Amino acid sequence: MTDTMKAAVFEGHERIVLEERPVPQCGPNDAIVKVTLTTICGTDVHIWREEYPVEQGRIVGHEPVGVIHELGVAVSGYEVGDRVLVGAITPCGSCFYCQNHSEAQCSGHEDEWKMIGAWRLGNAIDGVQAEYFRVPYAQANLAKIPDDLSDEQCVLLADIASTGISATETANVGLGQSVAVFAQGPIGLCATAGARLKGASLIIGVDSIGKRLSIAREMGADEVIDFTQEDPVAAIKRLTEGRGVDVAIEALGKQQTFEWCLDATRPGGTVSSLGVYGGKLEVPLESFVYGIGDKKILTTLCPGGKERMRKLMELVRHGRLNLGPLITHRFSLDQIEDAYELFGNQRDGVVKVALTP
Amino acid sequence: MTDTMKAAVFEGHERIVLEERPVPQCGPNDAIVKVTLTTICGTDVHIWREEYPVEQGRIVGHEPVGVIHELGVAVSGYEVGDRVLVGAITPCGSCFYCQNHSEAQCSGHEDEWKMIGAWRLGNAIDGVQAEYFRVPYAQANLAKIPDDLSDEQCVLLADIASTGISATETANVGLGQSVAVFAQGPIGLCATAGARLKGASLIIGVDSIGKRLSIAREMGADEVIDFTQEDPVAAIKRLTEGRGVDVAIEALGKQQTFEWCLDATRPGGTVSSLGVYGGKLEVPLESFVYGIGDKKILTTLCPGGKERMRKLMELVRHGRLNLGPLITHRFSLDQIEDAYELFGNQRDGVVKVALTP
Amino acid sequence: MTDTMKAAVFEGHERIVLEERPVPQCGPNDAIVKVTLTTICGTDVHIWREEYPVEQGRIVGHEPVGVIHELGVAVSGYEVGDRVLVGAITPCGSCFYCQNHSEAQCSGHEDEWKMIGAWRLGNAIDGVQAEYFRVPYAQANLAKIPDDLSDEQCVLLADIASTGISATETANVGLGQSVAVFAQGPIGLCATAGARLKGASLIIGVDSIGKRLSIAREMGADEVIDFTQEDPVAAIKRLTEGRGVDVAIEALGKQQTFEWCLDATRPGGTVSSLGVYGGKLEVPLESFVYGIGDKKILTTLCPGGKERMRKLMELVRHGRLNLGPLITHRFSLDQIEDAYELFGNQRDGVVKVALTP
Amino acid sequence: MTDTMKAAVFEGHERIVLEERPVPQCGPNDAIVKVTLTTICGTDVHIWREEYPVEQGRIVGHEPVGVIHELGVAVSGYEVGDRVLVGAITPCGSCFYCQNHSEAQCSGHEDEWKMIGAWRLGNAIDGVQAEYFRVPYAQANLAKIPDDLSDEQCVLLADIASTGISATETANVGLGQSVAVFAQGPIGLCATAGARLKGASLIIGVDSIGKRLSIAREMGADEVIDFTQEDPVAAIKRLTEGRGVDVAIEALGKQQTFEWCLDATRPGGTVSSLGVYGGKLEVPLESFVYGIGDKKILTTLCPGGKERMRKLMELVRHGRLNLGPLITHRFSLDQIEDAYELFGNQRDGVVKVALTP
Repeated sequence: MTDTMKAAVFEGHERIVLEERPVPQCGPNDAIVKVTLTTICGTDVHIWREEYPVEQGRIVGHEPVGVIHELGVAVSGYEVGDRVLVGAITPCGSCFYCQNHSEAQCSGHEDEWKMIGAWRLGNAIDGVQAEYFRVPYAQANLAKIPDDLSDEQCVLLADIASTGISATETANVGLGQSVAVFAQGPIGLCATAGARLKGASLIIGVDSIGKRLSIAREMGADEVIDFTQEDPVAAIKRLTEGRGVDVAIEALGKQQTFEWCLDATRPGGTVSSLGVYGGKLEVPLESFVYGIGDKKILTTLCPGGKERMRKLMELVRHGRLNLGPLITHRFSLDQIEDAYELFGNQRDGVVKVALTP
Repeated sequence: MTDTMKAAVFEGHERIVLEERPVPQCGPNDAIVKVTLTTICGTDVHIWREEYPVEQGRIVGHEPVGVIHELGVAVSGYEVGDRVLVGAITPCGSCFYCQNHSEAQCSGHEDEWKMIGAWRLGNAIDGVQAEYFRVPYAQANLAKIPDDLSDEQCVLLADIASTGISATETANVGLGQSVAVFAQGPIGLCATAGARLKGASLIIGVDSIGKRLSIAREMGADEVIDFTQEDPVAAIKRLTEGRGVDVAIEALGKQQTFEWCLDATRPGGTVSSLGVYGGKLEVPLESFVYGIGDKKILTTLCPGGKERMRKLMELVRHGRLNLGPLITHRFSLDQIEDAYELFGNQRDGVVKVALTP
Repeated sequence: MTDTMKAAVFEGHERIVLEERPVPQCGPNDAIVKVTLTTICGTDVHIWREEYPVEQGRIVGHEPVGVIHELGVAVSGYEVGDRVLVGAITPCGSCFYCQNHSEAQCSGHEDEWKMIGAWRLGNAIDGVQAEYFRVPYAQANLAKIPDDLSDEQCVLLADIASTGISATETANVGLGQSVAVFAQGPIGLCATAGARLKGASLIIGVDSIGKRLSIAREMGADEVIDFTQEDPVAAIKRLTEGRGVDVAIEALGKQQTFEWCLDATRPGGTVSSLGVYGGKLEVPLESFVYGIGDKKILTTLCPGGKERMRKLMELVRHGRLNLGPLITHRFSLDQIEDAYELFGNQRDGVVKVALTP
Repeated sequence: MTDTMKAAVFEGHERIVLEERPVPQCGPNDAIVKVTLTTICGTDVHIWREEYPVEQGRIVGHEPVGVIHELGVAVSGYEVGDRVLVGAITPCGSCFYCQNHSEAQCSGHEDEWKMIGAWRLGNAIDGVQAEYFRVPYAQANLAKIPDDLSDEQCVLLADIASTGISATETANVGLGQSVAVFAQGPIGLCATAGARLKGASLIIGVDSIGKRLSIAREMGADEVIDFTQEDPVAAIKRLTEGRGVDVAIEALGKQQTFEWCLDATRPGGTVSSLGVYGGKLEVPLESFVYGIGDKKILTTLCPGGKERMRKLMELVRHGRLNLGPLITHRFSLDQIEDAYELFGNQRDGVVKVALTP
């Protein structure tokens, strides 16, 4: 057992740097996992840019694949050496929120809700862009990886796949429904894949970047709309006999896309929102039918827990979901600064990067 | 059969006046009903004030109890003389919206959605503040009244009870949950009653008018908050161990109450909105947890159809729901101008009026 | 307009014969449709064998594609000449059952429930294996066919696709769940396709006929089990870490398959049953966990109505559902006796037949 | 701290006797609770009669109110001395079943499902008819009792109230629906109360014992049927316009009541079953509409977990639920043999007993 490890630490504006840190201690409900693969999330970029606040000195990252290194005294059913996937969201399974099925808002054993609920790794506690990390509430969050899945097949399930797909589950997309997904970044692309998994008959991807629209088709979009070329709402209405889609998914977090979503949705339809909004957010009243259009606005953080991870892995194993096209670049943990520079500035057509400690 | 009848007609700003009109013609899917009791809705007051646009010359009103006078050739299972309640919302039962269970947004047999869906009476077609009115899609909308119910026991079910209660159904209030209802006007009072019917354990009514707060207690509120005396959000958090309610109901249609609703709701909770919003509507981002608090914003127009009316009547019959306390004043149709003057200006502690042709 | 037409009429044991009949009359809520394609259902075979009772002289058949020939006075939004698909189940849209979302059990405008609810065509009223047929409650049941779909792409949607797929919807199959489908006849094959559409990760088809198991793979099964070669329950438990599937679908209507379903389902799981049971049906108590295993047994007739048909057509149009492999034989209406003889006796590897008037 | 304690131990046919036992040891996930009040359940009587198998030497009982005596190292947010209610069902919050919301079927941290899932106390492990007991998965199962509730107000929530009420939640009883509850023993009486809480408009209690039918009215039944005096199915159809109820609840576990439930339910309706069945269970096919009546048969064990207990306590606190009428007799733990003799033989009009260590 090593006593120290390398870890990517937030140290200020556009500074996430490699530091030497102690390997974390294992409490009774914890596990320590040796990381074999991780990635960088858009949220990490917000941290890097100081747009989302975490304390200085925090190890970042929340999408880990690895091997169990140590197990807490209260954890059972696992062995050191098991390959595991851990979700970005680590619910405790016992608190008010977990027992009310708002697991992503988990307040933990202390039952005290904090921003942002069960997003602990690389946020409220140290994260996974490191050689080792501590899994809180390990019993609920260690998902064993079947032998026939590679690390790369699993790593994107921890956050973007779970988040993106959840938009279609929260909206309860039904067989034969129509779905539009606004923004085809990593999350939006996974929402597109989710709409396909849920049995939508018509899936419309909206973005302005040609490459993303082309991946959107690979992930399941029937139609793609470049909003710089045509009014996306008009195009959607044309594709839906004038009514609008049953479900519009917001995967960006901007006023414009939120407005388009409401406007592109039929009366009685649903806006399923994944975006993190800043500044101001206004509800366009006409699209909202002044509050009496039977429209719904639903938000979802990201489902976590080992069963969520198991089910997503099963979808990958049986060929239902392939996130392969999304990993465009690979780095070692030592190259963490380069990785942030490339991903944070969206250079070289990057969609997602893989990071190996 | 009379050829003409008296009817309350919108003729311009604060002018709803009694006119002589032909008794309506009965098409194949219609019924003609002789009105025995009706009421005035807050929405009628918006028409009266020209805040909600209907065309001049329109007969107003959408909450009718009456007796079948004539039946269309395609309607069966009824007889002339049957006592009936007709909901404010008259879905056709056959269109895209009806078959997708968005009945209140019904586009009718022509399958062309118009503002505001299935609210036809006194809006898109002539209404019920008259001696007779035409029921569109009568097969789906004539609800026979059991002999043991009086007209007064039924008339408020057509709109405010169906609307108010629906907020709790759309939000799927569960046994033992906590619910706050913002504004205790007629709709909000019915939402309060609905929360009780759905098995909430803690119901909190918010308003500034003492009499309304006192009726709120009669309708089922455990706690009432006068928002001029204390911060309603702080009070609600104090009553819910700091978390906020599971469900907040907006029953007014104002920025302030909408904000309070979002703020008073726990992470993962639901805002169920009934209000008709004007001007601007902004989403307070911190209360919205920036879009990632797993919060839901749901809107409901008003469920209609004869089964809805039957079930509401059954709740009244078996003593589950008593809207008696809400009817505070009674007028004949001849006094329609006085009735609007009193109700529109909220004089004399009026809650709801009963109008008899 | 012809006054008479050819029609396939039930005339006694294994006698469904072609007769000359008057073209049906069109009531106010009806449409008359000229049939362009139809098929024979397993239920028709039960009629042919006198295993399911219909009155002698009844025109049989309930899966029609055709062209509108005449429209009732109360029907609008259509024109003579429109190509339409009509479901086997024709709900009225207005009765107790329709308004309570049990549309398949529709009691019609008279509000009097009869066996079997909204299955009227070729059962309670004359059917569609004829040159013309009458569509009851036409407003709710005429689904326009998009130009880019052929009759053959649509005809199986009327019953077997709607029925088979519905098993997965009633069971609310979730993303990543496991599903076993017992019996891979036409209905079971469509249930298999439905499980795929709903996003199950593991789909297991069970039958004893090699060809059906091979089509099962085409329709979406990941694994197939020949129950003459191995114990299907043991095989399913082996494939699901010993737990059993989340959802088992019964698509035959036999004691044995019903038992297997209960036994193959995990605690808390769901048996979704489509079979029509005869004789006796016993619940195996151990598999049922003596009533306290949180298991569910759900039954579904067949969803109907024009929106159901529209959505199924959209799934076909966008390449989500392809029932092509199921139509193995084609006949003209004149060959009706040959068609019943072949299909009824399951000769020549028949799966489904297409019948052209 | 005492080292030994008194406990009621199953020692063979109709022998549950007081023995001296060591106070249980506290593992990392456990708590030790000092019992202040408990009760005897019908299931304990099945153990006493050897109708339900537990191993000899097992301490029985699963409905405890008490005070925290010791806390495991992995448990936080509680203090020794806290008053707590623990449900009969103690889910772990982390396993396959818990994360799939089948908490009552929880397989525990070892992820190995055993009969009967999360019913551990007094079944798979030692129970609560003792001075102390061990709470497994304490973090998920210790529900703090508000100061304004007495032990007697809470003790019946642990099992019969949670079970009985759950029948109406599993069936998703809607506002204005009709519900019949077959058998008005303790569980059935709680189901009756549950139907009232859920907003049913018509609640029908069925039993043959006058006193139980009279308590049924207190708990919320509108109508009661003595099945020795009239055919309950005919009576129910008469009360529901010939259709049958929306939901029938089986609260006994017998072929006859199961049959009545299916028969008394309308097409498209739901049988919600709580009974534990022995012998044989047959589905009456005509009432089942041969499998195509869109009927549902749902079973529920008993929801557990601290949030369930908290919500039930909130219903009691706010006057929604009063189980007072059910406790008819009181004993000390020393009188355990008398208590079983009285309750097991249903002497002296007993409904429920309270037992104080």
